[in-house]
Amino acid sequence: MVETSRHRVVIVGGGFGGLYAARRLGSAPDVRVTLVDRRNFHLFQPLLYQVATGALSPGDIAQPLRSILRRQRNTTVLLGEAVGLDAERREVLLSDHGPLPYDTVIVATGARFSYFGHEGWASVAPGLKSVDDATEIRRRILIAFEAAERERDPARRREWMTFVLVGGGPTGVELSGALGEIANDTLRNDFRSIRSPDAQIVLVEALDRILPSYPADRSASAQRQLERLGVQVRTGARVVHVDDRCVRVQTTEGAEEVIPTRTVLWAAGVLASSFARHVAERLGAETDRAGRVMVGPDLSVPGHPEVFVVGDAAVMPWRHGRSVPGVAQGGIQGGSYAARTVLRRLHGDPVPPFRYRDKGDVAVIGRLSGVTNIGWLGPFGRQGGFTAWLLWLGIHIVYLIGFANRIVVVTRWGWSFLTKGRSTRLITGHPLLPPIEDPAPPATAPPADQEAMGQDAISR
Amino acid sequence: MVETSRHRVVIVGGGFGGLYAARRLGSAPDVRVTLVDRRNFHLFQPLLYQVATGALSPGDIAQPLRSILRRQRNTTVLLGEAVGLDAERREVLLSDHGPLPYDTVIVATGARFSYFGHEGWASVAPGLKSVDDATEIRRRILIAFEAAERERDPARRREWMTFVLVGGGPTGVELSGALGEIANDTLRNDFRSIRSPDAQIVLVEALDRILPSYPADRSASAQRQLERLGVQVRTGARVVHVDDRCVRVQTTEGAEEVIPTRTVLWAAGVLASSFARHVAERLGAETDRAGRVMVGPDLSVPGHPEVFVVGDAAVMPWRHGRSVPGVAQGGIQGGSYAARTVLRRLHGDPVPPFRYRDKGDVAVIGRLSGVTNIGWLGPFGRQGGFTAWLLWLGIHIVYLIGFANRIVVVTRWGWSFLTKGRSTRLITGHPLLPPIEDPAPPATAPPADQEAMGQDAISR
Repeated sequence: MVETSRHRVVIVGGGFGGLYAARRLGSAPDVRVTLVDRRNFHLFQPLLYQVATGALSPGDIAQPLRSILRRQRNTTVLLGEAVGLDAERREVLLSDHGPLPYDTVIVATGARFSYFGHEGWASVAPGLKSVDDATEIRRRILIAFEAAERERDPARRREWMTFVLVGGGPTGVELSGALGEIANDTLRNDFRSIRSPDAQIVLVEALDRILPSYPADRSASAQRQLERLGVQVRTGARVVHVDDRCVRVQTTEGAEEVIPTRTVLWAAGVLASSFARHVAERLGAETDRAGRVMVGPDLSVPGHPEVFVVGDAAVMPWRHGRSVPGVAQGGIQGGSYAARTVLRRLHGDPVPPFRYRDKGDVAVIGRLSGVTNIGWLGPFGRQGGFTAWLLWLGIHIVYLIGFANRIVVVTRWGWSFLTKGRSTRLITGHPLLPPIEDPAPPATAPPADQEAMGQDAISR
Repeated sequence: MVETSRHRVVIVGGGFGGLYAARRLGSAPDVRVTLVDRRNFHLFQPLLYQVATGALSPGDIAQPLRSILRRQRNTTVLLGEAVGLDAERREVLLSDHGPLPYDTVIVATGARFSYFGHEGWASVAPGLKSVDDATEIRRRILIAFEAAERERDPARRREWMTFVLVGGGPTGVELSGALGEIANDTLRNDFRSIRSPDAQIVLVEALDRILPSYPADRSASAQRQLERLGVQVRTGARVVHVDDRCVRVQTTEGAEEVIPTRTVLWAAGVLASSFARHVAERLGAETDRAGRVMVGPDLSVPGHPEVFVVGDAAVMPWRHGRSVPGVAQGGIQGGSYAARTVLRRLHGDPVPPFRYRDKGDVAVIGRLSGVTNIGWLGPFGRQGGFTAWLLWLGIHIVYLIGFANRIVVVTRWGWSFLTKGRSTRLITGHPLLPPIEDPAPPATAPPADQEAMGQDAISR
């Protein structure tokens, strides 16, 4: 029964790259596919910020890998963590499992945000990559408003109502836009002692503009739209210190500024997954500064045609000496290409080099607005505001996996659109507020925006 | 601005009892309401087992308390944990907050399952009361199938594929029915080495029949329906030992049986919340064996007309010397009654005693079947099978809070109904399997139901 004649493909990672590779190989009778992931589900990462901001539930944007791939009889899904590659024996080593032999391995383990050597900041300023990150960030955002509601000291209340987002890429822009919406609309009538629109939302970007991968006029449009939502955009500002009370930034002129805050969210930098960096080291492959593997024109590691690296874990060649950007399409196209290449080689067909087709970028900024940069649509591809928002909506629904998820997401969006509500803003995990820091300075007068009713209800 | 003339009502707990009390008081201009809960959301507990079994997301059955009560200008929601009652000073003491003064307090803190003095069993056999319990139970169920899929030793594989549910009340019945569905339908094509329908699901009940609050013929009908789903029902079996490898039960005849299993879920016994027990102790009020407070005909504590206890935290009088059962309706009607009583007293109106209106019970058993016991419908109120299932569906949709949630739940149910799928079966939190217990006994032959393909993919 054991068919050793079939070509064994091991795919590490069930994100866009790994999943699209597995699907492409699903109908091939002469390969046997094993997909390994630490999680049992595929996560639609472009919408993860909506989980972090209470607009969607984790289950709305995730789908079990076994369920997606159940009809592929040549495919096995394995829950496990890849920790090593033995290139001589052609085995992937798992943390809690026997070795997994391969004829071809496709590494699609992605990347995470980078703290530029300050890993200690991670506990204070979580990044948004996993479902657990998203529910933790959601908890922190909601707890901050709860703490502000009952805080009597105006300085500390200000800290709780200040949110700093580090990194002006798509994640930082979308998160800060959603935060602006939460403060201005969603929570507007929820509290009695604070006015949620008084929240300060600060987006910090070290480069001279946000969305640096977009054309300059799109960056300017995004900044204007964010500012309309009350978000303060600080470009040319590098974070030099983070702790649980403040963020310190340095401008390009060298001036330093301290922003007192209790909530810092991190969406800056790129660091390839540790498995991808391990693979590069074991194979002696070159990497860029972020640890991403430099792959050849066929997305395999030079000298190791049996090892592909795709998506965010790789530096995939594009045009004009640039590499493919770290977006979902990079994973989707890279994974599909690697799978097709495996089949072409098996059948002795010629293998054309990887060609990335830029489908364009869309980022949404709060409610009813956004920016697009879609080259192949010509002038129409550079939209802002409502048109961008509509395009974004359509694209995300089309790519979202799972029919029920599509309906659920459309329902939640429709309802949020009508009511400005966000129904999934639950505080789960450790539920309680940090203890009140007593005593409040007795000389302090109650802040002007505090209603006596709420104040009195909290403490006499 | 501080209006000391208004009657201050503090409600502890945002479940059915607390929420319906707060809503009833919402339009009263002469009271000021503070609702305290450890969580920022109201949870629709009757559907929590569907979260634990991957059919719904937590966000689908929860709604932020602030959002539900935002229009009630006389109401403040406070995130905090009530830890004490000072009856002399009329203050509720909070764990991380100043004291909360009241003129009337409504205690609606509910109950949890009881381990009958074996609190150590709780970590091995979690109960289903909170969202975090539900995602943890979901994780354990899914991890058990994953572990079985890669386990080569048949005895250990059997342990992973055995699920023991303790307690034959509605929660135990609905959970075991859902597990039967998961094993028979949802996961049927997901695995390569195991056959999910081979899972053993054992429902253990110490009394002589399941659903003891229903008439005997309804219990028998529920048992038949469960057995049709492959659930083994053991009545008259008391659990005497639980650890991470087995459950030991004793029959009424005194015989002992060991059920080897890795997954034990607990849905037996009742223990009033610690706050309710504290209140009883401080006021010298009587309690039943479960620690629930014996309240008078107006649901207040005898001798303390300003302290109401409602819902699962109380023994609310009903008829024929029986008390109101621990169901959602008990909380809903008790909370509303306490609120109306507060207003009647304020206005000098006569206060009639609490009268529970039994609206009947419905339990669902897997897909398309269930049992009902609805007295006021006459003979039609005693249904089984599909009619019961339809009734259950309608009732739960009507009582579910939040319009978007209703649509989302109907969508997910409709989709599950058509596909037999459960789209939210995510393993979150600690993701990985327990380490493989090596070495597998070398003398053991591979089990007959093991496909060579999966086997080979896992380890050579």
